[in-house]
Amino acid sequence: MSSYFADIAPIAYEGSQSRNPLAFKWYDKDRLVLGKRMEEHLRFAVCYWHSFCWNGSDPFGGDSFQRPWQHMADPMAAAKAKADVAFEFFAKLGAPYYCFHDRDVAPEGATPRESVNHLREMVDVLAAKQAATGMKLLWGTANLFSHRRFMSGAATNPNPEIFALAALQVKEAMDATLKLGGENYVLWGGREGYETLLNTRMGQELDQMGRFLNMVVDYKHKIGFKGTILIEPKPREPSKHQYDFDTATVYGFLCRYGLDKEIKVNIEANHATLSGHSFEHEIATALDLGIFGSIDMNRGDMQCGWDTDQFPNNIPETALALYLILKGGGFTTGGLNFDSKVRRQSIDPEDMFHGHIGGMDVSARALLIAEKMLQDDQLGQLVEQRYAGWATPFGQDILSGKMGLDAVAAHVVARNTDTPPVSGRQERLENLLNSYI
Amino acid sequence: MSSYFADIAPIAYEGSQSRNPLAFKWYDKDRLVLGKRMEEHLRFAVCYWHSFCWNGSDPFGGDSFQRPWQHMADPMAAAKAKADVAFEFFAKLGAPYYCFHDRDVAPEGATPRESVNHLREMVDVLAAKQAATGMKLLWGTANLFSHRRFMSGAATNPNPEIFALAALQVKEAMDATLKLGGENYVLWGGREGYETLLNTRMGQELDQMGRFLNMVVDYKHKIGFKGTILIEPKPREPSKHQYDFDTATVYGFLCRYGLDKEIKVNIEANHATLSGHSFEHEIATALDLGIFGSIDMNRGDMQCGWDTDQFPNNIPETALALYLILKGGGFTTGGLNFDSKVRRQSIDPEDMFHGHIGGMDVSARALLIAEKMLQDDQLGQLVEQRYAGWATPFGQDILSGKMGLDAVAAHVVARNTDTPPVSGRQERLENLLNSYI
Amino acid sequence: MSSYFADIAPIAYEGSQSRNPLAFKWYDKDRLVLGKRMEEHLRFAVCYWHSFCWNGSDPFGGDSFQRPWQHMADPMAAAKAKADVAFEFFAKLGAPYYCFHDRDVAPEGATPRESVNHLREMVDVLAAKQAATGMKLLWGTANLFSHRRFMSGAATNPNPEIFALAALQVKEAMDATLKLGGENYVLWGGREGYETLLNTRMGQELDQMGRFLNMVVDYKHKIGFKGTILIEPKPREPSKHQYDFDTATVYGFLCRYGLDKEIKVNIEANHATLSGHSFEHEIATALDLGIFGSIDMNRGDMQCGWDTDQFPNNIPETALALYLILKGGGFTTGGLNFDSKVRRQSIDPEDMFHGHIGGMDVSARALLIAEKMLQDDQLGQLVEQRYAGWATPFGQDILSGKMGLDAVAAHVVARNTDTPPVSGRQERLENLLNSYI
Amino acid sequence: MSSYFADIAPIAYEGSQSRNPLAFKWYDKDRLVLGKRMEEHLRFAVCYWHSFCWNGSDPFGGDSFQRPWQHMADPMAAAKAKADVAFEFFAKLGAPYYCFHDRDVAPEGATPRESVNHLREMVDVLAAKQAATGMKLLWGTANLFSHRRFMSGAATNPNPEIFALAALQVKEAMDATLKLGGENYVLWGGREGYETLLNTRMGQELDQMGRFLNMVVDYKHKIGFKGTILIEPKPREPSKHQYDFDTATVYGFLCRYGLDKEIKVNIEANHATLSGHSFEHEIATALDLGIFGSIDMNRGDMQCGWDTDQFPNNIPETALALYLILKGGGFTTGGLNFDSKVRRQSIDPEDMFHGHIGGMDVSARALLIAEKMLQDDQLGQLVEQRYAGWATPFGQDILSGKMGLDAVAAHVVARNTDTPPVSGRQERLENLLNSYI
Repeated sequence: MSSYFADIAPIAYEGSQSRNPLAFKWYDKDRLVLGKRMEEHLRFAVCYWHSFCWNGSDPFGGDSFQRPWQHMADPMAAAKAKADVAFEFFAKLGAPYYCFHDRDVAPEGATPRESVNHLREMVDVLAAKQAATGMKLLWGTANLFSHRRFMSGAATNPNPEIFALAALQVKEAMDATLKLGGENYVLWGGREGYETLLNTRMGQELDQMGRFLNMVVDYKHKIGFKGTILIEPKPREPSKHQYDFDTATVYGFLCRYGLDKEIKVNIEANHATLSGHSFEHEIATALDLGIFGSIDMNRGDMQCGWDTDQFPNNIPETALALYLILKGGGFTTGGLNFDSKVRRQSIDPEDMFHGHIGGMDVSARALLIAEKMLQDDQLGQLVEQRYAGWATPFGQDILSGKMGLDAVAAHVVARNTDTPPVSGRQERLENLLNSYI
Repeated sequence: MSSYFADIAPIAYEGSQSRNPLAFKWYDKDRLVLGKRMEEHLRFAVCYWHSFCWNGSDPFGGDSFQRPWQHMADPMAAAKAKADVAFEFFAKLGAPYYCFHDRDVAPEGATPRESVNHLREMVDVLAAKQAATGMKLLWGTANLFSHRRFMSGAATNPNPEIFALAALQVKEAMDATLKLGGENYVLWGGREGYETLLNTRMGQELDQMGRFLNMVVDYKHKIGFKGTILIEPKPREPSKHQYDFDTATVYGFLCRYGLDKEIKVNIEANHATLSGHSFEHEIATALDLGIFGSIDMNRGDMQCGWDTDQFPNNIPETALALYLILKGGGFTTGGLNFDSKVRRQSIDPEDMFHGHIGGMDVSARALLIAEKMLQDDQLGQLVEQRYAGWATPFGQDILSGKMGLDAVAAHVVARNTDTPPVSGRQERLENLLNSYI
Repeated sequence: MSSYFADIAPIAYEGSQSRNPLAFKWYDKDRLVLGKRMEEHLRFAVCYWHSFCWNGSDPFGGDSFQRPWQHMADPMAAAKAKADVAFEFFAKLGAPYYCFHDRDVAPEGATPRESVNHLREMVDVLAAKQAATGMKLLWGTANLFSHRRFMSGAATNPNPEIFALAALQVKEAMDATLKLGGENYVLWGGREGYETLLNTRMGQELDQMGRFLNMVVDYKHKIGFKGTILIEPKPREPSKHQYDFDTATVYGFLCRYGLDKEIKVNIEANHATLSGHSFEHEIATALDLGIFGSIDMNRGDMQCGWDTDQFPNNIPETALALYLILKGGGFTTGGLNFDSKVRRQSIDPEDMFHGHIGGMDVSARALLIAEKMLQDDQLGQLVEQRYAGWATPFGQDILSGKMGLDAVAAHVVARNTDTPPVSGRQERLENLLNSYI
Repeated sequence: MSSYFADIAPIAYEGSQSRNPLAFKWYDKDRLVLGKRMEEHLRFAVCYWHSFCWNGSDPFGGDSFQRPWQHMADPMAAAKAKADVAFEFFAKLGAPYYCFHDRDVAPEGATPRESVNHLREMVDVLAAKQAATGMKLLWGTANLFSHRRFMSGAATNPNPEIFALAALQVKEAMDATLKLGGENYVLWGGREGYETLLNTRMGQELDQMGRFLNMVVDYKHKIGFKGTILIEPKPREPSKHQYDFDTATVYGFLCRYGLDKEIKVNIEANHATLSGHSFEHEIATALDLGIFGSIDMNRGDMQCGWDTDQFPNNIPETALALYLILKGGGFTTGGLNFDSKVRRQSIDPEDMFHGHIGGMDVSARALLIAEKMLQDDQLGQLVEQRYAGWATPFGQDILSGKMGLDAVAAHVVARNTDTPPVSGRQERLENLLNSYI
């Protein structure tokens, strides 16, 4: 197969006045922002699955993209052709990272052993391509949801032999991630949940999942993987209910199984909105609970009740997300993975570039806004002011445990006056946010 | 004020063939079900607020009910008139329990001290009425959301003086609950959340709330209250985001602040559906996490995105809820509180009876269905069968920690065959459930 | 291929006490209900697509069912094997009708002409099977959404050549429906909508669709098809917005293009709830607007924002739907088509029977409840009473147009008193409904 | 009462670099945009109800704002004090229009006649204030939803005497609107819907509403009112189902009752999202159906299932809305009414200014973006191109009715080739939109 993107030149930064749709208007990777290069802040990753494995199908229609490598007879040859296309794309786009599932890069074999061999062979191919292009792996993961054997769950399957098949895949995917220098390892439990409580022992399944995660953490330490283990929350789809519903739920699960110091979360924008939260809520929650790891950047459609995985295009929402992340110290091993796909109707190879360019430009622009918000710090000061009372001795005596319920109550009765509320100033703060855009 | 329900005789059980709308068709309180009387299983409570404090208003319209005691000039006289009506209703309905907020039964005073005095005076009134009628208190609680001082939260308020005013109310409400023999004390944090992250330090507010709950638990032990402390989850409304989003979120919060052995949840059906879950999901989650306490029985409208607090009328859903509760051992200190209100257009005194009779009959009928499900146990056996593999040595070796990720993976590679899935049988189980109705 | 359902005997009615999961407990086809046999009232149809074409896949996983006829190399041989299985199922289940899309029964060919030939050949096969089994066709339809050519719409495609390809399919599917004695012809416009307004001329697309529907109606008359043309509303999925959003929207569309006397609606329960309505709302709307045609019976999952197409199992909701339909005169050419599929995990052949048996039994039971509601007529009388004022001369003078706004206003000023509201009695009516179950 | 906004100077335009929160950064009313002044394009209106009648209460809490004029004993004196504050606000803000309900400006009296007199007296007060300040009335309306008499509907009430009371109010409100030079008259049917179908004759209620609207239109012509009659769609709240669900539903209703040439719609952003649509969808629908009238500008919270009526702050969404409106010819009698309220916690008088300034600046900024989009016209051209086929003779022959279904089908069979789809280019168009921001 000849080059799939032969017509497309590497994407360059041309500035905000450029009218070239195949250029960055805002993402200038070497521009310094708060002391670091844009590229170092944003740590963009391209995902393998949406761009190279998906064919444009949806529940009501088949392949619209007609990618040549998806129509080759020999699965390993197809996997290699796909890797060629993927790395051509990565190189032309100029994002520093990528992410993959085991089954994205290597086909399932006829037996467990053959599947292992396929993956190992492809890891060598990927390693060579990384070396040749300088691309890095943000994270690896295992696909424990597409094969029919996992239809009732992987770690939470009623059958321990299927749990074991999942364990093999995860072990191999962790080995692959380590070998490829991956900075994180992600678990998304798309089938770890239920369709109906009528046939489900939720408590037992949670114990199975707790055990599985502990096995993963033990194995990480055993092989010396220094990256972060991440759980990706999602409320449902394909399951009716997914056990990793949202960040707060994952936190409780980690506490229950002694994992809250070992595992963090990979937050996806579209999963956040499906769970009834905003993206920034999920980020703030993870930061406040100490389990913020990485983000899957995309957007949902608020009129659609399923995961649309669209490329992000909302400037203020992205700015607020990055503001919170920067305030929380920025990414460490995490990054910004585009778990985004072009629409079913965007069938041209160049559409894949439009999607990613748009997402990178929105993020870059949002980063510049977040920079202004932090440098100006009016927002920070207004919030500081609002909570000033808790820094007084009275506030501290409560928080420190010095005063109990009756002591605090006695203080009020002695004082015997009401305390009037003060304005929350929401509209003023919203205008302030818009002033940075 | 003369009797508000003069025209209505005490509600009697008349059997399923009765056409009398003011009689029970299914709730036969002394009927034995699995060795206990219906009344002991269901532990029905009537709530004070919806029936005696609400006037039928909604965000688009005012008082439709025109309850006389809500139009009296002297607040304490009104409170006493209201108590007369409430206990007349309780007695005629024949539910054994009731529930209240401090401000439902006693008016806010001009100063903290006056508010305390009002409540204490009314507690004596209630105690006398309990003695006279045999009514019992299922739980007490404090209203920390209606007064403007709590507009930005109570325990999570940016101002510690407002936290302190909340502490006083809770201390007094706990004292009242103890004095009245209440079996639980509930906290619903309607304003413990945020309107916008722009003005909010979520992490600090969670710490404040964690501190507040610890103060509550300490005080419970200090005064010798033997009942259960319950948190009532709700995802939002009035807050945009409420910190006690759902049962799983509350569990994580309790773990974080060392309270998971001290506090349980009071689950409301309508709050469950607002949080994106089914009622039975929330019950199953609480049971599986060991924090199931009590339920607020009502129903939402799945087309409406707010708390409609309608009386329950869905037989199969209620049956499933009670099946899970009975399987989990039934209520201990908890019960089934009707946090339900008649519609704005249901302005006649007798409508209050129709609502409660309907709710009690649906619950009684559901209890009889749950009894059949447990006695027949076909459902239980089919589920048992489904998980049989985990009882084998291989399953146990995984769960017990004997085998790690690599050992399990090695087992699969050695075996080198796939494991086919088996049917989840959902349709058959759903038909089975319907066969009990 | 030998019989797919060899182990399953024809499903018989065994009465409500039967514990046989493969028997009807309520559907007794010859039982008289309000003067007609159950079978004549309910006019059950089985759909071809969910049971015989779908393989259990969802957006996150592939084939779980492994149906043999879906893995045959020759598409026409596969189509014939599929027809064998389908008619074996129909005959054993005992529903009198079936429904299909053109592409369900005959494969797409390499050219338009080949596709036409495939369908015509299969129509002969189906006709022979109908004759052999006594099965009848409730309705036919054309699949204008699965093929990539329709990714941007069929009738509403920006390219008239694709509109023309759709026209060919519909013409052939109408011919097939006529030939097979179908009683209705259905159009569901899954791709007649948009993904983004940025690339869409909605007004022009509506005109195209209006033109297309007029062509369909003209052709119906030309060929002498006596059945009903039906549009099936759905708000979205696969489209972000589907033009046939709900019944009220379709009604406006029909008025705009002069079709309100020619076309009716086929209402699906799950589409109703996705559009923010209840199933009974959509039925009542269609009846009141004079465009009620037929129903697609299934249920959605109120926690999932997509079309789950589950078998119906809610007795009171189905009863209310059938009560409205019977009150409106019952079905004429329409019927009750199970647009329902077994879950991805329900992989056994017998699961298909469980799904349909459950749906038929729930509907039969609902029919018996609706019969009681109509015979007793308490509900009808209470509603009659509520609107009594409109039968008075004053009410009639307003409705007839005798009195204008100022005359009515003058009446009020002359009278100069307020009119108090009366109770809406919702709780009492809900209890009444439950009393019939 | 002295000036409520004594501390606040008239709001001036200071340009985008200003850091003064009480200044416009973008709304420069005399700036020319596409040949008209900003003020003429945007036609901003302030609503009376949210800012001057609401007290900050919500279903879970009472008055937080403590507006002095809401605590005066004499209702007419309070109405006059409120008018003073309102016009002080209007004048300082600098929006050219306002809107009101009858009961916003004048209190309900003890009898219908007294209510009429109150309104007429206040109309004189408003007229004088308009003359003094130059303020204009964008539209008037009648509150047919707050009083308990309307709890079961106004025009759709089961009692014709209540219909008549509504008719009086509308007649008087239309007279008031005419007298005050109002440019439109709006009807929002908050209670024109149902709570339960069990007690509702939807068909009859629709007929009543159709009759009511015809009476309104007749009366409009009779009194010589030249403005536009507008219906404001909303799907629900307070009703479970509101008959004016969305624009498409209103269109069908207007057709059914012969009103589609007489009545247009007033589209609210938050109502659009509650009905499962985007704001721009509702605008595009109204434009395409020929019933676009005016807009109520605000925003909802996509995590909250109720009407939050927040001030708009989303730049791209507002830009898209204004782009569509400008493309459709801009406002005629309509305008941009802020049906928006400050949050319950925004209790300071200046918060009302922050809300409106933010909304006006966002709209002004969006107008400048829409100007760029129209001038550049790349978007327009890409869409033109996409539909080019319909301008060919073949496309025209289909649309004009020259070719029927069989002729078009024959064309395809003769041609006998498939037509490949072309990319929908969604990502590229989304990037283009962002490039204008």
